[in-house]
Amino acid sequence: MDRVLLSHGAGGREMGELIRRVFLAAYGSEGFQPDDSAVLKLEGPEIAFTTDAFVVDPLFFPGGDIGRLAVAGTVNDLLTAGARPLALSASFIIEEGFAIPELQEIARSMAQTATEAGVAIATGDTKVVPRGSADRLFITTSGVGRVLVQGISGAKARAGDRVILTGSVGDHGTAVMLAREKLLEGENIASDAAPLNELVMNLLTHDLPVHAMRDPTRGGVAAALNEIARQSQICLEIDEAMIPVSPGVEAACEALGLDVLQVANEGKMLIFVAPEAAETALTIIRNSRYGQDAQIIGTAQPTPAGRVHLRTQIGTARILNPPSGELLPRIC
Amino acid sequence: MDRVLLSHGAGGREMGELIRRVFLAAYGSEGFQPDDSAVLKLEGPEIAFTTDAFVVDPLFFPGGDIGRLAVAGTVNDLLTAGARPLALSASFIIEEGFAIPELQEIARSMAQTATEAGVAIATGDTKVVPRGSADRLFITTSGVGRVLVQGISGAKARAGDRVILTGSVGDHGTAVMLAREKLLEGENIASDAAPLNELVMNLLTHDLPVHAMRDPTRGGVAAALNEIARQSQICLEIDEAMIPVSPGVEAACEALGLDVLQVANEGKMLIFVAPEAAETALTIIRNSRYGQDAQIIGTAQPTPAGRVHLRTQIGTARILNPPSGELLPRIC
Repeated sequence: MDRVLLSHGAGGREMGELIRRVFLAAYGSEGFQPDDSAVLKLEGPEIAFTTDAFVVDPLFFPGGDIGRLAVAGTVNDLLTAGARPLALSASFIIEEGFAIPELQEIARSMAQTATEAGVAIATGDTKVVPRGSADRLFITTSGVGRVLVQGISGAKARAGDRVILTGSVGDHGTAVMLAREKLLEGENIASDAAPLNELVMNLLTHDLPVHAMRDPTRGGVAAALNEIARQSQICLEIDEAMIPVSPGVEAACEALGLDVLQVANEGKMLIFVAPEAAETALTIIRNSRYGQDAQIIGTAQPTPAGRVHLRTQIGTARILNPPSGELLPRIC
Repeated sequence: MDRVLLSHGAGGREMGELIRRVFLAAYGSEGFQPDDSAVLKLEGPEIAFTTDAFVVDPLFFPGGDIGRLAVAGTVNDLLTAGARPLALSASFIIEEGFAIPELQEIARSMAQTATEAGVAIATGDTKVVPRGSADRLFITTSGVGRVLVQGISGAKARAGDRVILTGSVGDHGTAVMLAREKLLEGENIASDAAPLNELVMNLLTHDLPVHAMRDPTRGGVAAALNEIARQSQICLEIDEAMIPVSPGVEAACEALGLDVLQVANEGKMLIFVAPEAAETALTIIRNSRYGQDAQIIGTAQPTPAGRVHLRTQIGTARILNPPSGELLPRIC
């Protein structure tokens, strides 16, 4: 394979291969950290540091826009390192001819989402490329945060941990697909794009034994669970019946031929917590903004390491593989 | 004006207007910092934080490539805040079909430049967009650094300061233009893209009274000098005869109708230092990598504030305005 394929960007198996073959091969694996945020050790506090590019199409969709998505996505990635978000950067690549009122609307949406997340947009960059060199607008946000609870990482989930999912799955990806294809207008399906700082900070300030967190974005819950199982060398036993899916999303995914567990979410978190604290954590999450539908969806077992088992709604068991293939390009 | 124009991305007057009208208007001016790096105050050390998108065309050019450019540009922006670069992020937007060997070459170039700069690439992101949605490859790098000397800012130059330019101007922009237009092949013109950490760290560890630094990238020395004059509310008296320009670059700019003072540099720094330390600083810079051709090119005066005066080679004086218009799209 000597060309980049859409599947290389889909958040699944092929993206992992591309990262290993190209980026880890070049950068080395000491400095580069596979979690969503890198943690930098200063003499004083630890700093979390993350980046994400946003290429979503369309730019505006039910429940959000590229600006809200960019801020929420970066805030949520900082949270996964147990960090309080401090500041964001916002870098724009704009196609010549883009409407300035739309750009202003997107910048306002970013500012509102940043205010909601209690974080400043501290620095930025603006590039304009000639017509045809980019499709309207791409935004890359980076973020720094102060690590409040050290050692939370995708590699730190343990056998016995309970897996909490903070709400329904599939909303973002389904909303964007329907908006892009101009399908099912009138259906009440909206992106869940949201910054989860209140929810995660409530957990961390209660000093609960949270071991790992991951926001299930590209590749959905299927990708995120497989990443944690592999990084932490545990087996995850997931109960499909406990995974909340809204009826509209379920119907739309069926109609579009999508596996809702592979569809991107932008306002959800998977949280791995020690069993004795699971019910307390669940109560805190359900009392937090964006957490009212949270569920304990499974348990971590010691073996077979790196595997995710799904107990289906009809009672059978199957292996939940990491997604592969093209999935949904430009979903975030 | 309700559409984004190429001139909005050129680093001159129009870009400033776009940033004010769209981004500052939305984000507010308390959190957002107009310098190339934001400075974040923690309880412990101060952290510098910066971002830049790179959309250069072509991706490979004499003297460098988009990868070297992305790392050097972000390292140099951190340096302007008096910070030692600690870690970079690298976010890729890749057009479907891009050749993986080229991507590997670019990643290796980034790794080499990062090693040269003593900085880790700590985190990243990869998006792939369908063919035609982006022109081959865009990279956004962000960086964090630890502030070694507090208070260095584009707003802190003072009357009396000497202005040091660390080497010749116009090399990067001219090299990219010639490569893009496939002109003047065989001419020995190469980009100056380079990380200036050794040079700047040598100054800072000698505890010299450096007040402001700026790397003259998009919009060239003309843009950078005008920014500092405006931010610091001083007048800069610049002696054109002292600005080093290589003969090949001078000839190429004349042939292309470019003002070499408006052409982008990617391995140069403008350094504002108290007069009593100027000669010592110049010696240190000339003994540093990438600084052997440094010159004192001018002096800061108290009035007229915000103005840059150029004493030309033929002895006349003129106002050096900030660039405006399209300049050179996709130069960095």
